[in-house]
Amino acid sequence: MSIKARKTLGTPYANGAKLLFLGAGELGKETMIEAQRMGIEIVAVDRYANSPGMQVAHKSYVTNMKSERALLAIVEREKPDAIIPEIEAINTDTLFKLEKEGFFVAPCAKAVWTAMHRERLREAIASAGVKTSKYEYATDLKSFKAACEKIGYPCVSKPIMSSSGKGSYFLKSSKDVDIAFKEAAKARGASDKIIVEEFIDFDIEITALSVHYRDDDGKEKSKFVKPLGHYQISGDYHSSWHPWIEETEENAKMIKKIEKDIYDCAERIMNKLGGFGLFAHEMFIDLKNGKVYANETACRPHDTGLVTLASMPLGYSEFALHAKAVLGLPIKWDSRVIDPRAKAASHVILSHTEGWYPQYKVAGAYDADTNILLFGKPETYDERRLGVVLSCAGTVDEACRKAQNSAHKVQVSANDKWADQEITEKHY
Amino acid sequence: MSIKARKTLGTPYANGAKLLFLGAGELGKETMIEAQRMGIEIVAVDRYANSPGMQVAHKSYVTNMKSERALLAIVEREKPDAIIPEIEAINTDTLFKLEKEGFFVAPCAKAVWTAMHRERLREAIASAGVKTSKYEYATDLKSFKAACEKIGYPCVSKPIMSSSGKGSYFLKSSKDVDIAFKEAAKARGASDKIIVEEFIDFDIEITALSVHYRDDDGKEKSKFVKPLGHYQISGDYHSSWHPWIEETEENAKMIKKIEKDIYDCAERIMNKLGGFGLFAHEMFIDLKNGKVYANETACRPHDTGLVTLASMPLGYSEFALHAKAVLGLPIKWDSRVIDPRAKAASHVILSHTEGWYPQYKVAGAYDADTNILLFGKPETYDERRLGVVLSCAGTVDEACRKAQNSAHKVQVSANDKWADQEITEKHY
Repeated sequence: MSIKARKTLGTPYANGAKLLFLGAGELGKETMIEAQRMGIEIVAVDRYANSPGMQVAHKSYVTNMKSERALLAIVEREKPDAIIPEIEAINTDTLFKLEKEGFFVAPCAKAVWTAMHRERLREAIASAGVKTSKYEYATDLKSFKAACEKIGYPCVSKPIMSSSGKGSYFLKSSKDVDIAFKEAAKARGASDKIIVEEFIDFDIEITALSVHYRDDDGKEKSKFVKPLGHYQISGDYHSSWHPWIEETEENAKMIKKIEKDIYDCAERIMNKLGGFGLFAHEMFIDLKNGKVYANETACRPHDTGLVTLASMPLGYSEFALHAKAVLGLPIKWDSRVIDPRAKAASHVILSHTEGWYPQYKVAGAYDADTNILLFGKPETYDERRLGVVLSCAGTVDEACRKAQNSAHKVQVSANDKWADQEITEKHY
Repeated sequence: MSIKARKTLGTPYANGAKLLFLGAGELGKETMIEAQRMGIEIVAVDRYANSPGMQVAHKSYVTNMKSERALLAIVEREKPDAIIPEIEAINTDTLFKLEKEGFFVAPCAKAVWTAMHRERLREAIASAGVKTSKYEYATDLKSFKAACEKIGYPCVSKPIMSSSGKGSYFLKSSKDVDIAFKEAAKARGASDKIIVEEFIDFDIEITALSVHYRDDDGKEKSKFVKPLGHYQISGDYHSSWHPWIEETEENAKMIKKIEKDIYDCAERIMNKLGGFGLFAHEMFIDLKNGKVYANETACRPHDTGLVTLASMPLGYSEFALHAKAVLGLPIKWDSRVIDPRAKAASHVILSHTEGWYPQYKVAGAYDADTNILLFGKPETYDERRLGVVLSCAGTVDEACRKAQNSAHKVQVSANDKWADQEITEKHY
């Protein structure tokens, strides 16, 4: 079912709109906070107790979201106004079923089903007429090798289904074929396929946020957020900044042209996927040639978008935009593109230890115009994201340095030892 | 006990810092949200179930906070790192007792005890060397009349103890003495006294926010927020804007001088009251004569300060400042005064109906750069504050108009009828 324009709001526990979150991590938590500010009732579902989102929800369930029985039992009991998937590990067949029964799945079951699967997503992006890197599929070592040779080196391999870059490999030459295949096999999900992608020698990797919503009058509309930049380490988001590039007199014209392309790509992909909510499109930008390549799209708030909490006006972070759109509320702004209000950056706080109930040494880590967000996760393991630093400054570069500087000072302990933030390459 | 500089943070439900809120209304809710973002455990206490703050807390208690037994039982069970009073109806004797036992009461028991009582507060402000309007006390009709005559007309009468302007009266002439006395008598709290204050013919009523905190090194420090303007209707906050005045070339020098006075007054009062946390000082500004009169101080986030959610950078709203200070965390900024990042205004959404589980007609009420916050209160009655609109714009005037415009479009129903926002005088 599609969402209708919402005319009234009510009171939680009684007659208010109710949002059911499937997955209640740090991104769900921030979306829930925005909805809580609107007086919306929140039900959080996740696979473990006391997950970040559950801590700000009205009610929560711990269950396996791959189980149709579990999902149906919760949805039938709660009768939510919107079902909001936050993770991939959800039974999508059940989402289609629920949609048929009249429930609204954000943005729609088909979009969730498409975006969780790299092959389906690639085909959707390509059929929307948006340029991507070249790609080939493989199922075994032989066809994998052939695919790599066809694409050429360097190239990137990824399992068709996996989240947070798990199982991805950057192949410099044919020497890497065996290890890349093994990595993909380890992380492989339900599907047996691997995608091999041409390596784009991009200058900046960006996230373009777009939102599809119903206006007061019921008409479908779209808005766009000025893109943010980000970089990954080992295929996982490490830092992001907003706006994506510092504008100067020299590059203003080029930026305008590229941004036009970005919004155009975002709109095509969003329309192809369909539904109501926020979409986060990862794209590669080749500045020298002024080219935009679509990479992946998430049909929900994206980890790189945590920076929008600091950069965007109140109520226009990616979380607030998602909350409004899935509730059927209008997103008012004077123009089609919403600009950040401050130059800001985010930098992750990762765990390099494992165990329960982590503690954080924060003394000396605070800085001006800087926030240390901790997600409150009860358990940790190596490389788990436990928090994020958000900094604002006069330039994005300065914001990036500030956020990184604070984040690197936070030490984490889940036993008796304090673990530093591991310093890897690609930092400022 | 005073708060110590906090070196580490932990995990909720296990080893994290725990904040106990006495009173969990809309202001507590926003402070809790800021603390939740830092991964802090929240316990909410209020006199009714499902109060706004309880909806974003980890745990909650419904009890009468005037009862020592109730307060001690909760505190002994929860062992919070800070006890944060949000309302006046708290047993302050118990707060002193808890402080003696080693608990931290924010900002300190004496400050809470002083600020809740108009006579004690007046004397504290005066003894801090800060100018107020002239004032007299009265206990019966005869002494009340004498006090009014001594102060002269127009003047303002208020019960010594009452919150949200209840029982206040603006006396135009001696004809109003009887009705003013009756109004005060109706709203009177534990004390029998009434205060009669000189009417200051002010141009702008402001709220000055100041915060006292411990820096990383354990040293006590203070910061100030550029003042915000506000106006009241029937003694209750109706709209606020930030910054308090639009700066021009002509008035820049005058503003600088007045703001210096404001920060000086705020600092003196804050130091007199003592403790760690956010202080909100209501002051009258006589622009013509460049004079600042202190009125009242709350030693916690103030309703007029809701605007700081939209105007201030992330993590520097009055709620975030309070949360950090009571946790013993430093407040980093490059200067002593923190300026708003956007020009913003707030406008209340009031109930003009009564009953349970209010519904809100919001269709057509949304606007660009505007947020409609609903507090989620389960019960409503005439004049109860149920929400607030926060708008940003190019000028504070425009922000005020936008916020008012949106707020006035929201209709409230707690039965079968929809009640408009009542339009009174003093609007834009």
